[in-house]
Amino acid sequence: MASHWEEFYSTHLPPSDFEDNRKLLKEFCERHNKSNQRIVLVTSGGTTVPLEHNTVRFVDNFSAGTRGAASAEYFLEHGYTVIFLHRVKSLEPFTRHFTGQMFMDMLELNERGPSTTITVKPDCVDIVAPILARYKNAQETGRILYVTFTTVSDYFWLLRAACECLAAFEAKALLYLAAAVSDFYIPSNEMPTHKIQSGAGAPTISLQLVPKMLAPLVSLWVPHAYVVSFKLETDDSILITKARDAMTKYKHKLVIGNILQSRRYRVVFVTPENNYEVILTREQMLNGLELEDSIVDNVIACHSDFLSAVTYKF
Amino acid sequence: MASHWEEFYSTHLPPSDFEDNRKLLKEFCERHNKSNQRIVLVTSGGTTVPLEHNTVRFVDNFSAGTRGAASAEYFLEHGYTVIFLHRVKSLEPFTRHFTGQMFMDMLELNERGPSTTITVKPDCVDIVAPILARYKNAQETGRILYVTFTTVSDYFWLLRAACECLAAFEAKALLYLAAAVSDFYIPSNEMPTHKIQSGAGAPTISLQLVPKMLAPLVSLWVPHAYVVSFKLETDDSILITKARDAMTKYKHKLVIGNILQSRRYRVVFVTPENNYEVILTREQMLNGLELEDSIVDNVIACHSDFLSAVTYKF
Repeated sequence: MASHWEEFYSTHLPPSDFEDNRKLLKEFCERHNKSNQRIVLVTSGGTTVPLEHNTVRFVDNFSAGTRGAASAEYFLEHGYTVIFLHRVKSLEPFTRHFTGQMFMDMLELNERGPSTTITVKPDCVDIVAPILARYKNAQETGRILYVTFTTVSDYFWLLRAACECLAAFEAKALLYLAAAVSDFYIPSNEMPTHKIQSGAGAPTISLQLVPKMLAPLVSLWVPHAYVVSFKLETDDSILITKARDAMTKYKHKLVIGNILQSRRYRVVFVTPENNYEVILTREQMLNGLELEDSIVDNVIACHSDFLSAVTYKF
Repeated sequence: MASHWEEFYSTHLPPSDFEDNRKLLKEFCERHNKSNQRIVLVTSGGTTVPLEHNTVRFVDNFSAGTRGAASAEYFLEHGYTVIFLHRVKSLEPFTRHFTGQMFMDMLELNERGPSTTITVKPDCVDIVAPILARYKNAQETGRILYVTFTTVSDYFWLLRAACECLAAFEAKALLYLAAAVSDFYIPSNEMPTHKIQSGAGAPTISLQLVPKMLAPLVSLWVPHAYVVSFKLETDDSILITKARDAMTKYKHKLVIGNILQSRRYRVVFVTPENNYEVILTREQMLNGLELEDSIVDNVIACHSDFLSAVTYKF
């Protein structure tokens, strides 16, 4: 049995920087709610489940954060204000294009003592310039707020805090829950303090089901918002059934289903009315297009329909 | 009981890019062995233990890879050739100084249509220039080889392949095993194919002890090399005992012990003769010095003593 969501909050402390983040979320939302803009909460990356209080080992969920980071860029392009709630060190919008040694390899050092300069190589400027321009624009207009989590417990605390601020936007708020949240956790009182010792033999880890936070989120925290959840499976035969089950249970507006192996070029949109595929063709991929461009286009169209139906104006 | 190391290799397939990496390691070592230089294998970052064949979830070890990445830089500075065997996306030498948005924030866009340029802001040049110069020097002289792993099984395959190439360097080879390697794993034949479903209730994960690869490494793979292992604990009271136990058992030359909470400013060197602390004072820290600078200095002094004792010349 999944434990009840209220019990989770009463038995798990908020992360140490929680109050700072809550304040940032509050200020950010209050500032943007004045301008009558649409706002999206993008969650991204995997959550961890620590196996020890002094954490050396943890269970993690596979997720580089590509989907969330790319989507955040496209939402900004379409005029949305963005709260990017992501796993520490997962991919971020804009910087995701320059991972590993790419950055160092693009730079040219012109050593001239005190008047040394460093420039981006001319043949890289065409790639870097447009991304840098969009990054700087998002920073300067203050249209994106970055908030990070590590554990599943951090994530739940920050998710609720973000929702409390987003509620005021009513139907203008879009929740795009792309983070890979653990289904399991180890209750705080069952966790050892120190690193598990191998001398004692191989350990057995007993996990508990986490509460389904989508239930209070949809019905209590942001009852007027447009909520999109994601469903990742490895077995194609159960994907649509599981996606539709989730929608029936939580009564939100859209589930985007994807299969681990094909997630870069195919997703399934499951709505209360129907389901349809959004795909990236081989040709589009070779032209450097990303699936997230189409996903965000489709999600925004759904959000617009929803806004029209509730007679809000954008 | 830990399973035997030979059994591990016979029941776990090598990673898919194993032959490519083995070839790179072989060419790199053959090229450098001609120049009679010292060589170090630095392992860095944590290994994962997948919970499913189509991996959505895995157990991970806490490690950003700071120790290994910083140490690799100092080994290069001291003239060593470096094989940097690290976890995918863990910190790397040089690039580790520019994480997150630092890179984008340092760049200045000078938009002039087709003659647009991008430069590093003048007030950042002093910081970037020396790191960039050392990065480019390492690349141009071909003195560093980067090889990556993700799972504990990948790591074991690549570790043995690296040792097979390093054996020819005899005492000139230094093994600096800073990676946080899992003590536990799930045998391939006990792993489910698909993502574990939460509908079936909370799962219990049964782990097995991994074989202690340090045993064949020291006695069989690189019997003449200078081998340094690391020991991370969270409980200070057992650290030195555990470090000395490891040394007695595997008969290598040096164990560097550290406590999770103080690892940035204190380690303990445990040698067959004695143990002593290497620390970073608060003042040194404020001056931007790193503990790895002192660790590598001390390790190189130990390696030099060892080389003199075996009457090799450097």
